[in-house]
Amino acid sequence: MNAPVICGTIHGVGLGPGAPDLLSVRADRLVRSARHVAYFRKAGRPGQARRIAEGMLHPDAIEIAMEYPVTTEIPVSDPRYKACLSTFYEECTGRLRSLALAGEDVVVLCEGDPFFYGSFMHLHARLSGEVPVEVVPGITGMSGAWNATGVPITWGDDVLTVLTATLPEAELARRIADTDALVVMKIGRNLPRLRRAVAAAGREEDAWLVEHAAMPGQRVTRLAEAEGVTPYFSILLIHGQGRRP
Amino acid sequence: MNAPVICGTIHGVGLGPGAPDLLSVRADRLVRSARHVAYFRKAGRPGQARRIAEGMLHPDAIEIAMEYPVTTEIPVSDPRYKACLSTFYEECTGRLRSLALAGEDVVVLCEGDPFFYGSFMHLHARLSGEVPVEVVPGITGMSGAWNATGVPITWGDDVLTVLTATLPEAELARRIADTDALVVMKIGRNLPRLRRAVAAAGREEDAWLVEHAAMPGQRVTRLAEAEGVTPYFSILLIHGQGRRP
Ligand SMILES: C[S@@+](CC[C@H](N)C(=O)[O-])C[C@H]1O[C@@H](n2cnc3c(N)ncnc32)[C@H](O)[C@@H]1O
Ligand SMILES: C[S@@+](CC[C@H](N)C(=O)[O-])C[C@H]1O[C@@H](n2cnc3c(N)ncnc32)[C@H](O)[C@@H]1O
Repeated sequence: MNAPVICGTIHGVGLGPGAPDLLSVRADRLVRSARHVAYFRKAGRPGQARRIAEGMLHPDAIEIAMEYPVTTEIPVSDPRYKACLSTFYEECTGRLRSLALAGEDVVVLCEGDPFFYGSFMHLHARLSGEVPVEVVPGITGMSGAWNATGVPITWGDDVLTVLTATLPEAELARRIADTDALVVMKIGRNLPRLRRAVAAAGREEDAWLVEHAAMPGQRVTRLAEAEGVTPYFSILLIHGQGRRP
Repeated sequence: MNAPVICGTIHGVGLGPGAPDLLSVRADRLVRSARHVAYFRKAGRPGQARRIAEGMLHPDAIEIAMEYPVTTEIPVSDPRYKACLSTFYEECTGRLRSLALAGEDVVVLCEGDPFFYGSFMHLHARLSGEVPVEVVPGITGMSGAWNATGVPITWGDDVLTVLTATLPEAELARRIADTDALVVMKIGRNLPRLRRAVAAAGREEDAWLVEHAAMPGQRVTRLAEAEGVTPYFSILLIHGQGRRP
């Protein structure tokens, strides 16, 4: 008779904004000791999470690259987009679930904090209740971004609004006009629209663009001086001006 | 002739939400090796930042406790509040500046991320340009809080609004009604007002209160079941329900 297999744990591990010493001590230990390491990436790309962990993985670690089936070919509004991604997440879930049921722990590398606009959330929702899942919070990309500007983001009673540049232009403009401090994520090709929205809100002079925060190639520019497209890893910031005794 | 003294650096170091292994690797190294360690606290209290670093300080570390002169005795709107705090921050700045000018590095312990509603920002603004100041970002208290609930905070195009419970009730209600995901900081004695605002926005059923996230005594309760006052270290959350393929 075989001994019963003890189920392994799936760890969604926040790696922080990019610098290898901005992982938490808990994340650092998990990543360095893991035997199974999974991460998302676009086909043909190294993947940002994997890049952050470069040089940290155990020599015997088995890597599981989960490659997105769609990037920008199908519009988000198309029902095929949803179906395609859903199938993909089911497949990824299946791979990780099998490993856990065979008694293996798996570390899933996540940029920033896993529970803040993260892809891992789609696996977490499917795996929870089936196998043990643990999440390690991380320093968000936005903390990396305001740190890069050298200026605090919120003071006193400041309101902070976090938006994605994928929202309609009018909604962006309305919300940008109605907040003290601002963070906008997922910019990339949406930059021209975001720029019009910031201008409509009368706040172009206060807006900063941070590309690749805490990564090689970090760049901080005034929005007014930005080019037409930004890399995927870029964040727009407006710093709050609240109470400061 | 004496060799010229090389100026020391003031490091504002984010310690994360509370657990000792949620410091970043960079923060952990700085805290463990520091010879001068400064932190804010209320008179007669250990101080939350100091508590997080318990057991980590170098045996020869010299501690600089910066004790707030006011807590809740003077209302924030009173001009004496501002004057009193301003004098206090000037004094703290003076102490740290002298150390730096004498060639000593100082680590200032900060809960969460130093640039997110942090007290260190008041020293940073005064010291910058005078002596070298470096900031290490940290995992925010809110990341610790949504991690404690086991549920992601934002999906897809979700809008996240971060408020302080010190805002007027009507403004709280308006903003709580107009966001997908919500974080409210600085609750404490403002809980009854915040609760009325959440109810006015029709969102009482979705709201969670997280006390002492990632600290001993962590507690997650539905807002509807909360008591009348919460500890200073508590956060209200409403999770976003955005796109999830
Ligand atoms: C799918 S979300 C993941 C967010 C991540 N979970 C976090 O906590 O920051 C991807 C977006 O995060 C932002 N981002 C994350 N890390 C960044 C960094 N180091 N520099 C600039 N932007 C970053 C960009 O706006 C990017 O489009
Ligand atoms: C002066 S602000 C400092 C925020 C800190 N710099 C951060 O990044 O989270 C203090 C407020 O942060 C929140 N907070 C910080 N850490 C927390 C934790 N571990 N649990 C609950 N609330 C926390 C509480 O709302 C508290 O009133």
